[in-house]
This record gives sequence, structure tokens and C-alpha cells, in this order.
Amino acid sequence: MTHRPIIEHIQNHVTASPKDLQLFTSKLREVSVAKGKFLLQPATPVKHEYFVLNGCLKAYYLDKKGNKNIVQFAIENWWLGDFDAFYNQGPASLHIEAVENSTLLAINYNELQLLFQEAPIFERYFRILITRAFISLRKRIISSLGKNTKERYLEFCESYPSIEDRVPNYQIANYLGVSAENLSRVRRKMKTLK
Amino acid sequence: MTHRPIIEHIQNHVTASPKDLQLFTSKLREVSVAKGKFLLQPATPVKHEYFVLNGCLKAYYLDKKGNKNIVQFAIENWWLGDFDAFYNQGPASLHIEAVENSTLLAINYNELQLLFQEAPIFERYFRILITRAFISLRKRIISSLGKNTKERYLEFCESYPSIEDRVPNYQIANYLGVSAENLSRVRRKMKTLK
Repeated sequence: MTHRPIIEHIQNHVTASPKDLQLFTSKLREVSVAKGKFLLQPATPVKHEYFVLNGCLKAYYLDKKGNKNIVQFAIENWWLGDFDAFYNQGPASLHIEAVENSTLLAINYNELQLLFQEAPIFERYFRILITRAFISLRKRIISSLGKNTKERYLEFCESYPSIEDRVPNYQIANYLGVSAENLSRVRRKMKTLK
Repeated sequence: MTHRPIIEHIQNHVTASPKDLQLFTSKLREVSVAKGKFLLQPATPVKHEYFVLNGCLKAYYLDKKGNKNIVQFAIENWWLGDFDAFYNQGPASLHIEAVENSTLLAINYNELQLLFQEAPIFERYFRILITRAFISLRKRIISSLGKNTKERYLEFCESYPSIEDRVPNYQIANYLGVSAENLSRVRRKMKTLK
């Protein structure tokens, strides 16, 4: 099991001692999910959060009419989970499905609470990550209200570099809240202009 | 200047020593904003985050067409600010306007970074707050996609207890992304049923 990506990710955000890093990585467990299989399904208990080593996953929920609504993609170096259920230790409301064969590192809820006691630097690490996630979610709301398809797609490519050829067009459109036809048109035009 | 509400708020979330609390409150400055006046306007530097002691404020941005979009209300015991600009130390993109005469406690960005070094318990306090804010923002997105006006309004009343008679109907409608007429109809019906 390789820990190098998560260690680099931590060191990009905070200054952790070798002892703290060792403690953190000792709590991780590797998980694999094959393409099209589920990491999480609604109504099951949520005991873990996940860091993506490789692959690509999507988190979505089904609305009352059974429509799929994608709330997050995750690729290499992203954290992923049903944060509401994890934080409140309730059952999942999201589906998390692998878009590609994926390998993740899982951290257990109780282990994480212990870690916060033992190495408070990880309070800082997760505070910084969740602050960024909050800001980017708020930007996404503002974006969905005032921006056109091209602007939203460019923001998406910035948030998820290298994902645009890995996820089908209609799934990106779903995430962005635009029609698949409209998004293909915009993407074709952008390619012609390159 | 009273610090009791902020001290209670901190103690509701973490176990801080009297020394830590004293350090925190020593960094706070009281600010008053009269009804209809601005705490923050776009393009100005954002040096503070605010805790509401009393009153009510709204944060909004203007879209390209000049329409107002309310992204947050804040009442007693809420934190408020332009988090993106504060965290990235860039200029504001939000307006923050007092809906009622309001008194707030302000903490300066540099002072807060020092505080994190001196008393890491506040990493935990803000990690917990921002995690809750993130979860509630994600719920609001899901809500705006799948729920009707009554369901959204009930969620709003739960998040902001006691606010429903303090903010005009059309502003709540704006925040919820529903029409003012539709919201009044729903609210009248709910009152009749009580």
C-alpha cells in the first residue's frame, strides 16, 4: 500500500511531523472498487471517509422522481464521502459509484476522532480542506445562478483537471445543471477554437 | 462589551480552557451597523469575520443583470463574512447589509492565524463550524433541486428559528429560490392550520 500521495497532500496544506504522519497513515485501510460498482449506497451506515489514490468516482442522490443528481466527482487526491452521514454518524443518503476502477484509502470515524486528540495538526488539515470545499460549493451555487454553460464548464475543468475525457458528457452536464446537448455544443466549439 | 454569547457558543462545540477563552476574546472588537447600512461591499478588502451578538443581516451578491441573490442570513450566534475573500485575503464579492440594527464581534485575519498557533483548540472549533456550514449548504442545494416551497420553508425555519417575522417575505423567497407569491400562499396556509 502506498501512502505517498496522501502524505504529499497533507504536507501541501500543513506542517506535520514524521510521527504525526506515521500515526495518520497507520489508521488508513486500502479499498478497491471496480468500475460500475458502489462504494456506498443509501440507508447503509457511514463509517469512513475516503481519499482517492487512483480512479474516478461520482456521488449522487436520486430525487423523488428517481432522477439522478450528481453532487460530486472525485479523482486522484480528492477526499470523498457522505459527509453529512459521516459527521452525524447517521445512514447514507448518497450513492457513491466508481466511474473507473478505483483505489482509495479509508479512515474510520472513531479512529479519526482519536487522531484529532493525538495529533491536533489534523484538525488544521481538515479545517483547511473543508473551508475550501465550502467556498467552492458556494461558488458553484453562485455559478449555477449567474453563469452560462461555457463559464460553468471552464470552472469545472479548473476544479477537476484531466477529468473531461474520463467522464461521459451527460454526467458532466448533470453535475453542472445544464442540458447534455448544450454542453456538447459548447465543448465542440471550444475544441475547434484550440 | 459582552463576551458571554461567544463564550457559550465556543463551549457548546469544544472544551476550551479559561486561558484559551481569554486569549480568544482579547482579540475581538465590537462593531455596530445600523439598519439598511453595509458591513461589507464588493471590491473592498476583507480583514474580518463576524459573530452576531444581536440583530439580523443578509449577505448577497448582484448577478450580471443586477438581480440580488441572498446567499446567507445571520442572526444572534451566527458567524458571518465573505468567507472566500477572507480565507484567500482577496477583495469582497458580497454585500453584507443590516436588516435590523446589529451588533457584532469582529476577528481580524492575522489575529486569527496567530490564535490558531497559540491555542489549537480553535482549529477544532472552526473545523466543526465549517463542517456544519458545508453540510447545510449541500442540503440546501439538494433541497433546491428536489423539494417544494413548503418543505424548503420548513427547513429554513429550522435553520433560522425566530427569523420568520424579522425578514420581509420577498427576501426569504429570494433566499429559498421561490416566488414571493408562492411563499406567501404557503405561509398563510400554514398559519391557518396552526
